[in-house]
Amino acid sequence: MRIAILGTGLIGASVGLAIRARQPDAVVVGYDREVRFAAAAHRAGAITEVANSPVEAVRDADVVVIATPVLAIEKMLEAIAGAVKPDAVITDTGSTKAQVMDWARKHLGEHKGFVGSHPMAGKTESGPMAADAALFEGARWVIVPPVTASERSIDSVTNLATLLGATPMIMDAAEHDAYVAAISHMPMMASTALFTVARASEAWPELSLLAAGGFQGMSRLAGTDPAMAYDIAVTNRANIAHWIGRYIVALEELRRRLVDSEKDDDLYRVIAATELEHIKYSAGKVGREEQTNERIDSATDMMQDFIAGGWLREKLNEAKLEAGRRVKEDDNRIGRRDI
Amino acid sequence: MRIAILGTGLIGASVGLAIRARQPDAVVVGYDREVRFAAAAHRAGAITEVANSPVEAVRDADVVVIATPVLAIEKMLEAIAGAVKPDAVITDTGSTKAQVMDWARKHLGEHKGFVGSHPMAGKTESGPMAADAALFEGARWVIVPPVTASERSIDSVTNLATLLGATPMIMDAAEHDAYVAAISHMPMMASTALFTVARASEAWPELSLLAAGGFQGMSRLAGTDPAMAYDIAVTNRANIAHWIGRYIVALEELRRRLVDSEKDDDLYRVIAATELEHIKYSAGKVGREEQTNERIDSATDMMQDFIAGGWLREKLNEAKLEAGRRVKEDDNRIGRRDI
Repeated sequence: MRIAILGTGLIGASVGLAIRARQPDAVVVGYDREVRFAAAAHRAGAITEVANSPVEAVRDADVVVIATPVLAIEKMLEAIAGAVKPDAVITDTGSTKAQVMDWARKHLGEHKGFVGSHPMAGKTESGPMAADAALFEGARWVIVPPVTASERSIDSVTNLATLLGATPMIMDAAEHDAYVAAISHMPMMASTALFTVARASEAWPELSLLAAGGFQGMSRLAGTDPAMAYDIAVTNRANIAHWIGRYIVALEELRRRLVDSEKDDDLYRVIAATELEHIKYSAGKVGREEQTNERIDSATDMMQDFIAGGWLREKLNEAKLEAGRRVKEDDNRIGRRDI
Repeated sequence: MRIAILGTGLIGASVGLAIRARQPDAVVVGYDREVRFAAAAHRAGAITEVANSPVEAVRDADVVVIATPVLAIEKMLEAIAGAVKPDAVITDTGSTKAQVMDWARKHLGEHKGFVGSHPMAGKTESGPMAADAALFEGARWVIVPPVTASERSIDSVTNLATLLGATPMIMDAAEHDAYVAAISHMPMMASTALFTVARASEAWPELSLLAAGGFQGMSRLAGTDPAMAYDIAVTNRANIAHWIGRYIVALEELRRRLVDSEKDDDLYRVIAATELEHIKYSAGKVGREEQTNERIDSATDMMQDFIAGGWLREKLNEAKLEAGRRVKEDDNRIGRRDI
């Protein structure tokens, strides 16, 4: 088995490490535009050979994984088109998919081996030094098969995701791009905007001293590698813009509730209801709860009911009682003492 | 030394644990409206005695720490006004300060012992079970002395902050409330809005499955205890609304750059510049860099230059080069190959 990894940054090197941890005899050839990235991936044991060009890397490869930032994927596809074996399986790990599927169609034509993919895992840190063989464990791995793809290639990419500890989810490119705009790309932009607002303030020297875990967490994604963030932005513009718009509407609603003290009950209900939903989400209530035939989900639910159920129920009841008490207190806030 | 803690949730119980870790013979009396919270704090060793009322707790106390959610602070001040010793030192840990200072003036009158405060530390988890003796270590602790406060009370509260491992920062209530709106309260609201946007979507079952670390981090503050979040909101409305407004403007600007492909260079520059600033912030570049007489800051700077300096410089240069390359690439994107 000969695997080529084009782009040996965080994701590429993690794929290499994860494969080699499970199949120590796999030959993993790596290429990176930055020679020192390929060298670092080699030193880390993520790849077994360094190639000097994409063409050299993919020649004789059974599996090709393109793990560059999105805009570089087209160059890679174009470069390898004439060199890749007819029966090779080719995938990418790009954060947006519609654009990548177009490029693959354009450059690989009818090649049956190409299947797009996107492992939903990452870190703010970039580069091969941050690579981790366990990066994909427990993550979802979106698989986007074009009509040209053979069953065998789809199976191979699905198996790769499973081998690396991820759960594969097949969907189409448009669906994928709309979903990740909501839960990954818009939040990244929201984090950037939040950091710039504080950073641009004249009070930044004081703000930066006072900022604690809350601000650090909310601004963390502003530290995303700019090459990656920019490529995502320009290949998923419309979806991200749509979700930023929805986000602005939600912020405006919250602000309206906040400034009007007559809407305090309403404000409390929104805050409390959101926290309840967040508790459920944090406790692992994800996916369609009615899909009882999905083994993983129902197992998760059972586990969660078993472990967190009692506490969750208690917390829900408590919050409901508290919400009721607040509303009552609001009616006769003055003149009452229950301390 | 007899210390009374009113409200034995996360902050109150952490204050108790931190004091007892440093002064094992201190008598710490705790009161909480929720009897089981006081009992849990007692079991955890955060308090040495459980009181049945605020009055019982503060009688004979040398130091009183009010650590309830903000709206309950008024009730506490009102309750203890007649019972607290004339030479007791009284402080609170409320997240907003202007309102608390008003209540203290109203209920404690000319008592020289009251000094407001706000330790800038916390967790999303609440309650005495989440308490941590090290919670305040390395944090800033804002001290807000009213004109009525004696030197001795100001010193006592400052010493308490230092004893618990925090760095005291003296400021006035209005300043405090404006600053924390920017770096704590607005980000909390931003997190709530971000979570509600995704949660309210019909695609939530899919979104919740795909959401990875980025979304989890950005929505974490939506899990803030609603009593605490609500109290903060209604006692710091104008400041929070102001910062939500600035945040919306920043999001709109980012969206404008995103949808107009002619502004791509500009978009890249904003993303890259923000990341550079974020790297500096993450590396500990906070406060006024020109304040060379602040020993702690300059020590931090030296450490950081020593440890992260080389890497940081490299990253800055790299990003500048990359930005230059991008802009050039943009001019002749078609027809060029440099892979």
